[in-house]
Amino acid sequence: MRYELYYWPEIQGRGEFVRLALEEAGADYVDIARTRKSGMDAMMKLMQGKRVATPPFAPPFLKSGKLIVGQTANILLYLGGRHGLAPGNEAGRLWVHQLQLTIADLVVEVHDTHHPVASGLYYEDQKKEAKRRAEDFRKSRAPKFLGYFERVLAASSGPYLAGRRVSYADLSLFQVVEGLRYAFPKAMRRLERKVPEVVALHDRVMVRPRIAAYLNSERRIPFNDMGIFRHYRELDR
Amino acid sequence: MRYELYYWPEIQGRGEFVRLALEEAGADYVDIARTRKSGMDAMMKLMQGKRVATPPFAPPFLKSGKLIVGQTANILLYLGGRHGLAPGNEAGRLWVHQLQLTIADLVVEVHDTHHPVASGLYYEDQKKEAKRRAEDFRKSRAPKFLGYFERVLAASSGPYLAGRRVSYADLSLFQVVEGLRYAFPKAMRRLERKVPEVVALHDRVMVRPRIAAYLNSERRIPFNDMGIFRHYRELDR
Repeated sequence: MRYELYYWPEIQGRGEFVRLALEEAGADYVDIARTRKSGMDAMMKLMQGKRVATPPFAPPFLKSGKLIVGQTANILLYLGGRHGLAPGNEAGRLWVHQLQLTIADLVVEVHDTHHPVASGLYYEDQKKEAKRRAEDFRKSRAPKFLGYFERVLAASSGPYLAGRRVSYADLSLFQVVEGLRYAFPKAMRRLERKVPEVVALHDRVMVRPRIAAYLNSERRIPFNDMGIFRHYRELDR
Repeated sequence: MRYELYYWPEIQGRGEFVRLALEEAGADYVDIARTRKSGMDAMMKLMQGKRVATPPFAPPFLKSGKLIVGQTANILLYLGGRHGLAPGNEAGRLWVHQLQLTIADLVVEVHDTHHPVASGLYYEDQKKEAKRRAEDFRKSRAPKFLGYFERVLAASSGPYLAGRRVSYADLSLFQVVEGLRYAFPKAMRRLERKVPEVVALHDRVMVRPRIAAYLNSERRIPFNDMGIFRHYRELDR
């Protein structure tokens, strides 16, 4: 069976966390809005929920047979269980999901560095507020979150967040490091010195054969100034 | 076995979503930081993770025997399965979790109406930004989220979000309506006219015997200006 991934076609965004899991799993999937002419229409129709009892609030969402699963962390919970990207026991499954939800919190905060007032307004219309918010993010929030994952990795039996085997949370933390490097290169250069385990995890994920192949493929959309991780020089110091 | 809930003792906050589930389940639990003198110390120690392999990033978290579960939605996923507050089949379980994660997104946005720059700064130091953010929330985001839940309820076989039986997402949506009424009474008076199903769900949850008993007990902390839902007159129009 082929999964159908529904997400905005021009950005990595939240869809990227799902793409990375599908790629690591070697799953058969089609990225609907990127590859089908009517893909965006199909995505909008499923969200409007005329023909579906469980409409998602927003992309990304995954169609798996008749099942439609929305919310990034929920999709990963589903895929994790099916493809060995999460522990099989309940405690391990909950732990990896908890880590993923903490990453999701971080991702919201990254988004809000450039959109602290309203996601419906242009960055240019909230630049002043963005400067303040980004400063707090660089100085306080990013170190707090990455410091947390550093402690988790140090306490793990390793080399991954939840032990010997890679989980979807590891793939997501890799993506966070990639994104922060793109958005805040100056701040990250300083910050990375303090979180060597996080950096090592990033490097370990990057060379996994399926991930490496994906990153080198055209399926990987480059970072740009429409996604969650954006580089605005004035927000990085 | 008695659950231990760890959360800030003086606010409803995110802990309230867990409290409501525990109360509806009739579960045996102790609200550690509210009832034990050394409760706050115990909470901080678990988060620092010296003696625990899976430290939570932030409260709330739940101790269930040796298991420590963090992240509000993850705690509810766990409790939902144990206490019949979520469907037993996979599709239903994922759907309720998806709804909960959408509520969690809304809760972040409520928080950021009064803290759009930094959670570590006082409201007074980000009042100007808060005015802009709250206006967008009232005019755009709150109607979008509540309109979504209105559509979900209309499409549900009812009377609850996921059908005939109450789920933890219903309890959380009740809490969201309560909180929005407290924080934005003027805006909510207008908005509620457009989401009658959401209001009806709120009323249905409020009279459930265990919930009603809880709301009338001293265990229910009143809303105040330290929690997520805060009433600042200048943010409500």
